[in-house]
Amino acid sequence: MDLASYISGFVDGEGCFCVSFQPSRRHKFGWEVRPSFSVSQNADRAKLLYMIQELWGCGFIRPDRSDKTLKFEVRTVRDLVEKVVSHFQKYPLLSSKQDDVLRFGRICELIHQGQHLNLEGLEQIVRLAMEMNPSGKRKYSGIEILTSIRSGERIVYAAGNRGST
Amino acid sequence: MDLASYISGFVDGEGCFCVSFQPSRRHKFGWEVRPSFSVSQNADRAKLLYMIQELWGCGFIRPDRSDKTLKFEVRTVRDLVEKVVSHFQKYPLLSSKQDDVLRFGRICELIHQGQHLNLEGLEQIVRLAMEMNPSGKRKYSGIEILTSIRSGERIVYAAGNRGST
Repeated sequence: MDLASYISGFVDGEGCFCVSFQPSRRHKFGWEVRPSFSVSQNADRAKLLYMIQELWGCGFIRPDRSDKTLKFEVRTVRDLVEKVVSHFQKYPLLSSKQDDVLRFGRICELIHQGQHLNLEGLEQIVRLAMEMNPSGKRKYSGIEILTSIRSGERIVYAAGNRGST
Repeated sequence: MDLASYISGFVDGEGCFCVSFQPSRRHKFGWEVRPSFSVSQNADRAKLLYMIQELWGCGFIRPDRSDKTLKFEVRTVRDLVEKVVSHFQKYPLLSSKQDDVLRFGRICELIHQGQHLNLEGLEQIVRLAMEMNPSGKRKYSGIEILTSIRSGERIVYAAGNRGST
C-alpha cells in the first residue's frame, strides 16, 4: 500500500480546494484572499485526517461548525505551497478535480510571491478562482470583485458600513 | 502513483459496501440476500469509475435513479469475492470502514459457498450484515428477518400478498 497515493484517492472524493474573498478594510484593494485546503469526516472515521496531518506535517483538525464532523484544514500559504500543492504535483488527482488543483496551486504561488498586493496579480487570482468549482456557490461574483478592485470602491460601502479608507 | 492504493483511498471516502434483504417467495427461507459494492460520482467526474471498472474487470456503470450521478456497481457474487474483496485484502481501507469490508467479505464468501441456502448460514449472514453501517437505515431489522426465517413465516404475508409457498 502506498499511503501518498491513497491520500490522493481519498482527497479526490472528499477534499476541498477553496479560495474565498472577503471584503476587508485592512487590505490594500479592499479584499482579503483566503486559500484553504480541507477534508471533513465523521468523528468516528477521523483517523485518516490525523494520518494526512502527520504525513504533511501541517494543518489543524477541529470540529466543523456546520455539522457533527471533524475538519482537517490547511490555511497557511507557505504550507499550502510546500506541502499540499507539492503533494498533488507528485500524486495528482485522476479526476477533472486536478484542473482545480492546478488553478489552486497557481493562486497559492502568486500569493506566496506577494502578487496579490498589486492590481494585476490580484485580478489574475480572482479570475483563476472564478474558474474553480464552477458549480459551487459564491457569496461574491468575479465581476463584483473585479469591478470593486478596479474602481477602488469598497464593497463594504454597499452594506452601509462606510469604512475609513 | 500507485493506482490500486489510490482507488482504496477513493473508496474509503466514497464507496458503499451494502448487504440488503428482500422478502421473496422464490427463495427457500423467504428472503433474498443481495450484496453489492457501489461508488457514485457526478457525471463530469466519472472518469474514475471507468478506471475502477477497468482495473477490476467487472461491474457496470449506470445513471443513479436517485440523483444526477453515475454509479459504478458490482453485484455478481463471484466478482465481489474475486475482484472487490480481494482488492481490499491487498489494499485495505485505513479507516474504521475496513471493519465493514471484512464483514462484507465474509458474507460474500458464505454466499459464494452456498451457505445462505441453509438456516445456520443465512442466520450468520443476517447477523454479520446487521453489524455493518450501524448508522444506516434498514427497511427490515435483523430481529424481523431472523424471526421470519426461524418461524418459516413469510414477511410477504404481513403485507397481504399471501404467497403460494
